[in-house]
Amino acid sequence: MKIAIIGLGLIGGSWGLALKEWAKSEEGKTAGLEVVGFDAKGAQRHEAERLKVVDFTVQTPMEAVKDASVVIVATPVVAIRETFEDIAAVLMNGAVVTDVASTKRDVIRWARELLPTTVSFVGGHPMAGKTASLEEADSTLFKGCTYCLIPASNAKEEAIDAVTRLVEIIGAKPHFIDQDEHDAYVAAISHMPFLSAVTLVNLATSSEGWREISRLASTGFQDTTRLASGSTQMWLDICRTNSDSIISWLDRYQDQLSSLRAMVEMAGLRDEQGRSRSIESTNPEPLKSYLEKARDGRDKIELAKQQQRKEESFETVPMPSKQEMRGEMSRLFTGGIFNRRKKDDQK
Amino acid sequence: MKIAIIGLGLIGGSWGLALKEWAKSEEGKTAGLEVVGFDAKGAQRHEAERLKVVDFTVQTPMEAVKDASVVIVATPVVAIRETFEDIAAVLMNGAVVTDVASTKRDVIRWARELLPTTVSFVGGHPMAGKTASLEEADSTLFKGCTYCLIPASNAKEEAIDAVTRLVEIIGAKPHFIDQDEHDAYVAAISHMPFLSAVTLVNLATSSEGWREISRLASTGFQDTTRLASGSTQMWLDICRTNSDSIISWLDRYQDQLSSLRAMVEMAGLRDEQGRSRSIESTNPEPLKSYLEKARDGRDKIELAKQQQRKEESFETVPMPSKQEMRGEMSRLFTGGIFNRRKKDDQK
Repeated sequence: MKIAIIGLGLIGGSWGLALKEWAKSEEGKTAGLEVVGFDAKGAQRHEAERLKVVDFTVQTPMEAVKDASVVIVATPVVAIRETFEDIAAVLMNGAVVTDVASTKRDVIRWARELLPTTVSFVGGHPMAGKTASLEEADSTLFKGCTYCLIPASNAKEEAIDAVTRLVEIIGAKPHFIDQDEHDAYVAAISHMPFLSAVTLVNLATSSEGWREISRLASTGFQDTTRLASGSTQMWLDICRTNSDSIISWLDRYQDQLSSLRAMVEMAGLRDEQGRSRSIESTNPEPLKSYLEKARDGRDKIELAKQQQRKEESFETVPMPSKQEMRGEMSRLFTGGIFNRRKKDDQK
Repeated sequence: MKIAIIGLGLIGGSWGLALKEWAKSEEGKTAGLEVVGFDAKGAQRHEAERLKVVDFTVQTPMEAVKDASVVIVATPVVAIRETFEDIAAVLMNGAVVTDVASTKRDVIRWARELLPTTVSFVGGHPMAGKTASLEEADSTLFKGCTYCLIPASNAKEEAIDAVTRLVEIIGAKPHFIDQDEHDAYVAAISHMPFLSAVTLVNLATSSEGWREISRLASTGFQDTTRLASGSTQMWLDICRTNSDSIISWLDRYQDQLSSLRAMVEMAGLRDEQGRSRSIESTNPEPLKSYLEKARDGRDKIELAKQQQRKEESFETVPMPSKQEMRGEMSRLFTGGIFNRRKKDDQK
């Protein structure tokens, strides 16, 4: 079975490494896995070869997807459209196409508009973060992470099963979600944290005293603003393809900040000119509740995440017997998805 | 020499552990160091004894500071006032009082108003972050961190030297700064990141879909909002004593967010109703520059921090000879600061 990865950054590279890891297992050996990679940048392809994140790289996306049962598109969002245009005519009948982009509505639409009806598109989005460089690609990047799956309306059942199984194979937790919900929710949990990080950095660095200010930066600032160091192209595409959700959350964020401002003023021991106010004339209660609510809210999320990880460590994917394995693989990769080598294997 | 620590949380506990570590060195042995701790909460005192972060604890702040050459007040900001009131009459002539609070103007004022003129106050603020619990106290917490020092106007030269030396002893980098600048700058680099974290959490958790949203939280969200899990009392006090600086930065933050909103709108491939817009009708350039500026700004801060750490690893505090050590210690702890045991030692 041939799997093609288009776009060899952190996520594409980690997919490659995780698949190559699986290829060493008995199930992987049975599948006769071959991972081919393509990246628009020659230097990136070279790096991918050096780091051995794929079995080999090729010079064009068309070459990569030829005879591939599964195509994983791991480019920045806007480039996916072009990739679909490039590969549409070459895709194998029955191939499964998936992606890893952080926004899903446009990708699903492009798949419908540009990909042939003989292939199935199952959108994907691993909720695994890290700075964006191929050098940090890691076969365990997806271990335990929630992996959103959004199949196109015409995706075949077995294509959905195949992507689900691959997501399990790389150690992630498949999570089916509606495309509109996905885009609205990731705006809150991922795009807003990014934009707040970006704005905090620009706030500090555009200030006159910023050289002195930066001396005072500790781990708190560094952690809070880590996302601002990500790939500009990736984030720009995210903002562009999810602008409506982001604007809606930005408005709510601004409303909350205005309430917060009033609470700080009410609780403050200084007036706006910096003059001291008597403690009796202040009211810290609303601010206190606001801070407590956030602390409890975050602790709850942290706890839920820990619980999730714990459940996963019990729920290890059972290793199927050789007999079951053949059944499993043939159930998933039937028809066009099931490539020649696999067929030979079953004779 | 007796050093008293009032307030046994993460910072007080880490001070204790770092000093106890130093006490084992030759310089420390010569000083005959004894670290006594007090915390208003009995359970916290008990925990401090269990974790051995101080040599012993006492039942009242007065008992702790009696005969102490140095007093480190490590309570939340607002409680410092009360502590000063409690200990003022008992402080040894010539004692040095320092604190670790995140805001400095009020503390400096309370020191002037409440402490006797026979003692010197040297405000301190270690730029070392971590979640706030005594269990995480660590003798290496301050290693390489910038440690702000803000002496009261009437602080004696040798008191300033003594605190500077202690800060070096615990591995931090003394950094003298004006109280107004300190409070304005930490608002940008520490209090704003906290308030943005808090607001991001409240934004996500107050949404209807928050259960589903929280499933999608990855390390990006967790890192960006880590500060929201800190001690509410500590942060409430910080907001109250630095309300004017915070409000001024909040206003600038809101202005930046409004510009950002316009940039996202201009770059967006969707209008506010979520309808697709043609790519030609959009302009991503302003948003791109904004994101690039933040990425470069943060990378610069990160680089400066790494450079600073590198310099520090070369600049290890030289171990003085026994002769020099006595000179060093007697220069620092002369007069009232120099306690009986030290005097006996020098006879």
